[in-house]
Amino acid sequence: MSFLKKLERAQKRTLLCVGLDTDISKLPASIPKTANGVLQFNKKIIEATKKYVCAYKINLAFYETLGKDGWKILNETLKAIPKNIITIADGKRGDIGNTSAMYAKSLFEDLNFDAATVNPLMGFDSVEPFLNYKNKGVFLLAVTSNKGARDFQFLKVGKKYLYKKIVETSLKWNKHKNIGFVVGATKSSELKELRKTAASVPFLIPGIGSQGGSLKNAVKLGTNSKNNLAIINVSRSIIYASNGSNFAEIAEKESKKYFDEIKKYRI
Amino acid sequence: MSFLKKLERAQKRTLLCVGLDTDISKLPASIPKTANGVLQFNKKIIEATKKYVCAYKINLAFYETLGKDGWKILNETLKAIPKNIITIADGKRGDIGNTSAMYAKSLFEDLNFDAATVNPLMGFDSVEPFLNYKNKGVFLLAVTSNKGARDFQFLKVGKKYLYKKIVETSLKWNKHKNIGFVVGATKSSELKELRKTAASVPFLIPGIGSQGGSLKNAVKLGTNSKNNLAIINVSRSIIYASNGSNFAEIAEKESKKYFDEIKKYRI
Repeated sequence: MSFLKKLERAQKRTLLCVGLDTDISKLPASIPKTANGVLQFNKKIIEATKKYVCAYKINLAFYETLGKDGWKILNETLKAIPKNIITIADGKRGDIGNTSAMYAKSLFEDLNFDAATVNPLMGFDSVEPFLNYKNKGVFLLAVTSNKGARDFQFLKVGKKYLYKKIVETSLKWNKHKNIGFVVGATKSSELKELRKTAASVPFLIPGIGSQGGSLKNAVKLGTNSKNNLAIINVSRSIIYASNGSNFAEIAEKESKKYFDEIKKYRI
Repeated sequence: MSFLKKLERAQKRTLLCVGLDTDISKLPASIPKTANGVLQFNKKIIEATKKYVCAYKINLAFYETLGKDGWKILNETLKAIPKNIITIADGKRGDIGNTSAMYAKSLFEDLNFDAATVNPLMGFDSVEPFLNYKNKGVFLLAVTSNKGARDFQFLKVGKKYLYKKIVETSLKWNKHKNIGFVVGATKSSELKELRKTAASVPFLIPGIGSQGGSLKNAVKLGTNSKNNLAIINVSRSIIYASNGSNFAEIAEKESKKYFDEIKKYRI
């Protein structure tokens, strides 16, 4: 099944994506501060939130930092995610062709993620090995949610900003219709503008919650004309909503809150 | 000891860096095609080439693709490298602050690399967590060696190319004097130009050998006025010089050839 098809199905339920940025130092007191503790935590969070999400985004840095156990629990975490939910590897990789091919193989074949984030700075041949997996989604960084986005993404190239050039150029690479873009919720007017430029591709929208982006804008401006194709990611304010032994219950309540709010704005 | 100091000491010997981009499918017939085979191969390559190098660059993709064993053999490979030789983690990471901090911790604390390559597209706050390790080197992508470099790095921002803006802007972040740049050997005129803009920072120069860059230009144009600070990386054409059982001996000969040629151009 194509990535777009799988996403559209999952989005009949909701646009909400929960980010499993599980930081060992932030685990609830009831969970051991070990790699296995991270896995235990992830499983409980998935169990508690799965009816309210279309996707889980997994931040690779948080697993790499666990060393050799990181890979193992990443694998186990993926196995705990129901098959009808999209899995996104958030690693922002990108390198010369033969190296990008290694990253793509590792994420799309070995770990079997549905999608990955990719940094497009090195151009077409650095992105192509990801795109060649035509049933996998490839989210290129366009406008990121952090302050530093202003440093280079907002440089003017002729009359356009760099991020716009990146979007326009890479849309020409979209022969398998599996490109998407990362557009931060903290940048509402760019979100609105880019939805016009790229009307029919999915946007992965981080920056809600701890980073301060508006959920309403993310839904209203980030979706296409069918109120679709925006994947709205919330990480810390759901998974760390409580660090008591009731953390899963509270994460469930928080995700339901986002789920309900998205529903309200989506109609 | 600062990164620059350690590099200067290592560069009394040579500018040559060998890239340990060890691809399991390219291992010599005499070596088992397993993660342990990769480690065995790396150890023999290090033993054979260590007197001819200032640094080893380790391409993280090639280890990630080995899954949970990848981390272990990465660690073991690092242990086999003599302490006076620079180790560079080539992963081109870069993300929002809290995530970059995880990557930096993982590479600089857990694995204890001397330096890492970082993708600067997300701006200052994505790079800062790496720079905060003031005794570690941080090589930002400026002009990469691949064809796709032309897609975005060569867009004109006002009268300057994007790569030049990236270099000029990020030099302002260099309070710990630990920034360097990746400048591909396949882009000689940009190498010459950037050595003027960034006279006193190290350049990591890939693209020699399989990718076709000129070694002479890399040495002549990439070094500073003291014939220093260019780290010239050769990967495939040294480590895969032979796939016979004498692969280490041939790799030694190949690295000596590069070593001698660099010596000739450096004087």
